[in-house]
Amino acid sequence: MIGIFDSGVGGLTVVKEIKKAMPKAPIVYFGDTARLPYGNKSQETIRKYSSEIVDFLKSKNCQTIIIACNSASALAADFLREKYPELNIYDVVSSGAQAVTEATKTRRIGVIGTAATINSGVYKKKIAEIDPKIEVHVQACPLFVPLVEENWIRRPETKKIARAYLRGLKLKKVDTLLLGCTHYPLLEKVISEVMGKRTKVIASGEKLAEFLKKTHLETKFPSNDEYFVSDLTPHFEKLAGKILGKDIKIRKVML
Amino acid sequence: MIGIFDSGVGGLTVVKEIKKAMPKAPIVYFGDTARLPYGNKSQETIRKYSSEIVDFLKSKNCQTIIIACNSASALAADFLREKYPELNIYDVVSSGAQAVTEATKTRRIGVIGTAATINSGVYKKKIAEIDPKIEVHVQACPLFVPLVEENWIRRPETKKIARAYLRGLKLKKVDTLLLGCTHYPLLEKVISEVMGKRTKVIASGEKLAEFLKKTHLETKFPSNDEYFVSDLTPHFEKLAGKILGKDIKIRKVML
Repeated sequence: MIGIFDSGVGGLTVVKEIKKAMPKAPIVYFGDTARLPYGNKSQETIRKYSSEIVDFLKSKNCQTIIIACNSASALAADFLREKYPELNIYDVVSSGAQAVTEATKTRRIGVIGTAATINSGVYKKKIAEIDPKIEVHVQACPLFVPLVEENWIRRPETKKIARAYLRGLKLKKVDTLLLGCTHYPLLEKVISEVMGKRTKVIASGEKLAEFLKKTHLETKFPSNDEYFVSDLTPHFEKLAGKILGKDIKIRKVML
Repeated sequence: MIGIFDSGVGGLTVVKEIKKAMPKAPIVYFGDTARLPYGNKSQETIRKYSSEIVDFLKSKNCQTIIIACNSASALAADFLREKYPELNIYDVVSSGAQAVTEATKTRRIGVIGTAATINSGVYKKKIAEIDPKIEVHVQACPLFVPLVEENWIRRPETKKIARAYLRGLKLKKVDTLLLGCTHYPLLEKVISEVMGKRTKVIASGEKLAEFLKKTHLETKFPSNDEYFVSDLTPHFEKLAGKILGKDIKIRKVML
């Protein structure tokens, strides 16, 4: 089983990518909705919560874990790999950094994310490890997650806010923009419009599905996927249906 | 000791009101920053978290508890009063309902708050108990809390969002608007501007300080206030200073 976790509903955009690449991959999803958002929590707290979730996913027979939350990837991925050497742990930051370095031509890229992700400096570090000559310009966009949660996807207010956040990155003439938060793919159209045609917008989860496909043999049987959250609200179910394009059965479990 | 709790930093606007009315009242504050926001959580989860916080405040010798969080007031106040009959428990919803019924002349009032508070129907119920002839118009404004957290207090984007949220209440010609969320007093100027001069804007915590003053004898000694949070971030300290107009010492405690 492949265990995927996020602070909330956003990680389902990663599930969608994985299902596109490997339709029969058996997954267990956990969204920590009772304790979201992770984006403004401290490293210590994010590590504690992430460990609790990995313990839960292990109890569900997951040998592969995907951290589908940029804040947790930034602040807890290395910690989790050390703590659980028996598991294969993938994270969206590593895959996002890989994707964006492959896509850029001018070597001027932009990364947007939550305050926790951007302030951690993790993308600059990961990208520099791959190609130290790439110029990385970053911008925290803390209002994007609540705007998605509010379902203000195509509102003029959202575009106004996107323009304010992205102004600096446009001036830097980045040719590639990485969406360093799993909620952001839902705003991809608005973000692309604001950035203009010359900027390629990439979601951090896209490449991850590709990596996974290389190392996982696809089963022949349709999978029996399970979806868990730490707090169940009608809102989550609605947004989950919107992201995955189908209704799913979601169960609540308190860690 | 007076124990005051909120999901985060917003309850400090209530502390400010209390300190204005009773400068020497000894308080213990708890902000559940690790698990905020409460505004989109279920009743079960909010009750569990609130109980844990009241247990903590009891351990700090608080006999009076102020629920300075509208979501917790709406979904957990009666539950807490039943569970802790030995404590005096005040909540911002009851005091807000009282304040607004006293202030209205036309008996057409508006209430804004988080989705959890508004959907609970608690304000309509509480106000009807005081005066069933009052017309109550409600509006959830889920983006106001993240806008305050982002410190976008006087930004044009914020005013645009406020206009979108408040349009319906303006059309209803309410003469009084209750800020049913402890974050909202920070947006009071923008909200007042959008609503216009004929609408009186009232914060839910104002009346609470008045109630408290009637039942509490003020000590003669300056109090030694204590401030706790479940997760400490530089952001909280900054916003706390902004609300209280002075720097405070904040300690982290995990419940």
